[in-house]
Amino acid sequence: MISASILIIGDEILSGRTQDINVQFIAKSLSSVGITLAEVRIIPDNISAITAAIKDVSKSYDYVFTTGGIGPTHDDITAEAMASAFGRHLVVYPEALQTMSEYAAKLGKSVNEASKRMAYIPESAELLSNPVSGAPGFRLDNVYVLPGVPNIMRAMFALILPTLKHGPAIESKTICLRVGESTVAQILSSTQDKYQEVSIGSYPFVENNQHCTNVVITSSNHDILEVVYSELSELLTQFS
Amino acid sequence: MISASILIIGDEILSGRTQDINVQFIAKSLSSVGITLAEVRIIPDNISAITAAIKDVSKSYDYVFTTGGIGPTHDDITAEAMASAFGRHLVVYPEALQTMSEYAAKLGKSVNEASKRMAYIPESAELLSNPVSGAPGFRLDNVYVLPGVPNIMRAMFALILPTLKHGPAIESKTICLRVGESTVAQILSSTQDKYQEVSIGSYPFVENNQHCTNVVITSSNHDILEVVYSELSELLTQFS
Repeated sequence: MISASILIIGDEILSGRTQDINVQFIAKSLSSVGITLAEVRIIPDNISAITAAIKDVSKSYDYVFTTGGIGPTHDDITAEAMASAFGRHLVVYPEALQTMSEYAAKLGKSVNEASKRMAYIPESAELLSNPVSGAPGFRLDNVYVLPGVPNIMRAMFALILPTLKHGPAIESKTICLRVGESTVAQILSSTQDKYQEVSIGSYPFVENNQHCTNVVITSSNHDILEVVYSELSELLTQFS
Repeated sequence: MISASILIIGDEILSGRTQDINVQFIAKSLSSVGITLAEVRIIPDNISAITAAIKDVSKSYDYVFTTGGIGPTHDDITAEAMASAFGRHLVVYPEALQTMSEYAAKLGKSVNEASKRMAYIPESAELLSNPVSGAPGFRLDNVYVLPGVPNIMRAMFALILPTLKHGPAIESKTICLRVGESTVAQILSSTQDKYQEVSIGSYPFVENNQHCTNVVITSSNHDILEVVYSELSELLTQFS
């Protein structure tokens, strides 16, 4: 299993002002290339909290993706936390400044003092291209540092995804039932016991005052997924 | 500072199939009563992962709220993880069975074998009322165990909120600017240095090809929040 974790860095999510939408995008992208998202943490714009979380998850999972905290303002401290977590110095990357200058020039502008802060990156990092707004992210060891603005993060992540180790795609199939989940609990449980290579999830919801259940079968083994889907569909046919 | 953490228990969120909306609801509710949401973790339906996360966050924060994994099916293992984390046995709570029976009776049904699983709760827990679908959640020590279905979780959380320790409400005010954040970085930074009792966040976005920035000032001190809002509004007036 290839595993990953996401660190969402952002007071704006923890306060409830902003609804996070980055987790779902990254989660779907990782599933499509067979990487299991094993944990997400949402943490505040606090240097010691970010440093501790980076240290913790970077040793537990194959890949870590951070979003947020790499802009030009005082509350952008992810690069500093990365430097601290990995025991590196922050240094100016001339190629980052160059890219930012080229982007600014296209808009008829130049890079101001505050923006230069974004070129301070831990030494020995690999820069990650930003096709939307110029200022790069970076990778250090197994940690990919990305911005939090969704459209920029997505464009950068799309360039990273093909470079990651891939496993067989994690697929899922859903069976929608017109009964509450307790009615089918025994069938689901015995099927789960029989097939260890799939994961069977049960998600209740109410629609037009009718108790319903989505049964979701997930596996990275396509053939077994199809076998279990057929078998469960037949067992559950009276509830569909 | 009164602190809290949320554990979102759910493979359906980590796979990207489902967009979480519980974090934002709980986050806003906690802010309104002066409790700081300090960390969120999204973890899989895995007994050892849930147990480890409960142990970890319950000792770090005043309150922990878990959502998900307390239904009647094989993948509902939060009660078991709680029992393991706190070294308690799972026991049948007759009052939970009673409430579930009364709810089922209203629908002309009875509690089936699978549903009885929901009455197994760690010993010495306090039951948490579920006004939507009957089956209770529970509190053990500082951990509140809630379902993941949003409308049920919300109804239960609304009953819990008044029972928590309250601090002064955490308020925020936003100044919307028609410039990118680097233009105002120096003003924000020096204002942040001057007022330690507020937190100033800077959130860039693009609207109609125009770079914009939301400056968000947050504090549990209402008077200082107003002072900083006035001062920053004046300093930033040319960019509004």
